[in-house]
Amino acid sequence: MRITDLIEKKKLGHALSEKEIQYLIQAYVSGEIADYQMSAFAMAVYFRGMEDKETASLTMAMANSGHMLDLSCLGNRSVDKHSTGGVGDKTTLIIAPIVASLGGCVAKMSGRGLGHTGGTIDKLASIPGYKTSLKEETFIRQAEAQGVSVVQAGGVFAPADSKLYALRDVTATVDSIPLIASSVMSKKIAAGAKNIVLDVKTGSGALMKTLEDSRILAQAMVSIGKSCGRNVTAMITDMDTPLGNAVGNALEVEEAIIVLQGQGPRDLRDLCLRLAGEMLALVHGGDGAYWEKEAAASLSSGKALQYFRDWIRAQGGDDRIAENISLLPHARYKREIYAPRSGYIFHTDTQKIGLTSLLLGAGRNKKEDVIHMGSGILLKAKRGDHVLQGDLLATLYTEDSDLLIAAKEELLAAYVYADTPPKAVPLIYDVIR
Amino acid sequence: MRITDLIEKKKLGHALSEKEIQYLIQAYVSGEIADYQMSAFAMAVYFRGMEDKETASLTMAMANSGHMLDLSCLGNRSVDKHSTGGVGDKTTLIIAPIVASLGGCVAKMSGRGLGHTGGTIDKLASIPGYKTSLKEETFIRQAEAQGVSVVQAGGVFAPADSKLYALRDVTATVDSIPLIASSVMSKKIAAGAKNIVLDVKTGSGALMKTLEDSRILAQAMVSIGKSCGRNVTAMITDMDTPLGNAVGNALEVEEAIIVLQGQGPRDLRDLCLRLAGEMLALVHGGDGAYWEKEAAASLSSGKALQYFRDWIRAQGGDDRIAENISLLPHARYKREIYAPRSGYIFHTDTQKIGLTSLLLGAGRNKKEDVIHMGSGILLKAKRGDHVLQGDLLATLYTEDSDLLIAAKEELLAAYVYADTPPKAVPLIYDVIR
Repeated sequence: MRITDLIEKKKLGHALSEKEIQYLIQAYVSGEIADYQMSAFAMAVYFRGMEDKETASLTMAMANSGHMLDLSCLGNRSVDKHSTGGVGDKTTLIIAPIVASLGGCVAKMSGRGLGHTGGTIDKLASIPGYKTSLKEETFIRQAEAQGVSVVQAGGVFAPADSKLYALRDVTATVDSIPLIASSVMSKKIAAGAKNIVLDVKTGSGALMKTLEDSRILAQAMVSIGKSCGRNVTAMITDMDTPLGNAVGNALEVEEAIIVLQGQGPRDLRDLCLRLAGEMLALVHGGDGAYWEKEAAASLSSGKALQYFRDWIRAQGGDDRIAENISLLPHARYKREIYAPRSGYIFHTDTQKIGLTSLLLGAGRNKKEDVIHMGSGILLKAKRGDHVLQGDLLATLYTEDSDLLIAAKEELLAAYVYADTPPKAVPLIYDVIR
Repeated sequence: MRITDLIEKKKLGHALSEKEIQYLIQAYVSGEIADYQMSAFAMAVYFRGMEDKETASLTMAMANSGHMLDLSCLGNRSVDKHSTGGVGDKTTLIIAPIVASLGGCVAKMSGRGLGHTGGTIDKLASIPGYKTSLKEETFIRQAEAQGVSVVQAGGVFAPADSKLYALRDVTATVDSIPLIASSVMSKKIAAGAKNIVLDVKTGSGALMKTLEDSRILAQAMVSIGKSCGRNVTAMITDMDTPLGNAVGNALEVEEAIIVLQGQGPRDLRDLCLRLAGEMLALVHGGDGAYWEKEAAASLSSGKALQYFRDWIRAQGGDDRIAENISLLPHARYKREIYAPRSGYIFHTDTQKIGLTSLLLGAGRNKKEDVIHMGSGILLKAKRGDHVLQGDLLATLYTEDSDLLIAAKEELLAAYVYADTPPKAVPLIYDVIR
């Protein structure tokens, strides 16, 4: 097989065979196929798309390019959740203990954040003592015993995807649905869970800006998962405004704990219960709505909070944070931001809010950047709220007061006002099974 | 400017500004833009095309990336010819002395061949003593004095094009009309001639397989040349069957001399006279048909042959070949190939005939390959001829008798027979000014 023939085939709009895709990925990982050939191929895929069978072959080829985690000892209890990325998304910290408290096992590999969306592992790393890596055996045993273990995804899983993703990032070939779908699913397949719930974000703060694209992506991922023998449900959820009020690592852990204590922002709590319901429905069978009620009961009884505490302690973290959030890192400087005019908040540009958090030191521009754990934003007003001139919009937190000027400007630019309220949008648009 | 933004812009189908294209090319040559980014860009151009203004900017940016030859001392006498490549195309060897004999100056940079089409410079290199490189000053002075000088194109001309072409070759992005047009024209613009005649080949042996694509390419190149202040005429000519009967370096020189002696294959002679006519019409003004007759007179009077001899001698070659072709290198082995059945030759697959010549040692598979100057093919029957079983089809020549088996098979596969003659096709389809 010659790579130029494969590029040509895709360029002309033909489907590649399973064997051709396996060769493509193996030869790319081994270095026989050069980056400049793979990027031309990726651009051809952007224009020509891929058939379902091709996308599934690509996913399996990338999953098989590295270590495959064996979670068979957990049987059908193993369940994973993946979000396509959003601002203020701290759902894993809440959902994992809920699901564990109701018999599921969340053995989860999670990525570090890059750009305007934070990674779950960065949030967990803000908890004093929390170990973000464990030996594989310990990781699985903890998931079995406590129902939760969350570590940083190592380079051993789907290295072909990591290599291809880094290339797509610098060649304007990220936004291709078959490439996104196979990238996400190759990591999930390699991570071993029998059951997978996907949270596909849609709106201004998401990779997929339109509902139509989000639906196509969700369907592609569900179809891949099924053809690889996994049970998969995808939910399409709103990311036109940040989820919850906290953006930034320790600030988000704080908010997650508040939800686990039975309070916290309504949108965050509702989404967590729905996602947990779908996860438990895959694990135990039955209806998502039934398990959603069980999940709510686990929150109000304090059972989920107890599972959270046990998980954090098992993984070396200071579990007293569950009662005393002041033990989390806090930023040195804060600045309150006030509404410059009265009116309805017609739109909150989620990407700008994510960027504000990045500017405050809560995220990474480059892989090497060091995160400030206490930095970030607490939003007081979001899309749909009515404010009077001078009302508090948000509080900014940072370690470096010089960063406040640019951050304030970025945050103010994220708010669009109107004299009438915006159309209400659903939190959850669709569920695809 | 960021390269990912430029790739994205082209991916979405927008035109790049002149400044953006200049940055793209400068940064690519300097290494700031990586091959993997440029190949993704080239693939996006394949799908989205380029506007005329963009293609002209790309051409000028690539021409300006290296040395620009100054032929202003030749005034309007300087005239160049370029063929998009075909099998058996030895027209330069015939046309250049004709044009010189009628007052034109052909100061020509020519490439080495790669793949199934030979390069003019390889053919000239088969002439004992011929120097394929000259100092720039000598090169121009010879063109002024003798009317012809032909040397190997050095890497100093349009290096951006050379780099981009090598990349396109290994990323299946060769067949994009704006990229082909800008590649050809950047070299021609840098080579300095005021007048340019383009021979755009169409058919099974050409890069452009359809007349429609050939016409679009021809129009693109004419438009680029004019916007760069050059006089350009393009002819669309047949390459559905090899031009003339000889394929291979010394064999083609031999055939060119026969034409200069006033004989030789009709198709080759006719095309040379038409091309020479168009070149002289650009140099002196007036009608191509008038200059075509003058060109024919130059052939029959022996004037063109005299100019050929003077040119070869000026450039160090043994000019006695003009009377004694046995002084050219000859292959050690030959093999006659006979028609396996009677009938009309309905089609000759020109690419397969080119490949046969390559298999015999007359061409290069890789840049480093050494050419056998005497190897190649003399065709006895071509498209449209009627043959009886056992008639001579062609004679193969090679230095290595082991190569004859595969070459014979390839050549026989190039012939398609039928009981009725094929539709006649014109030698020249169109002239675009």
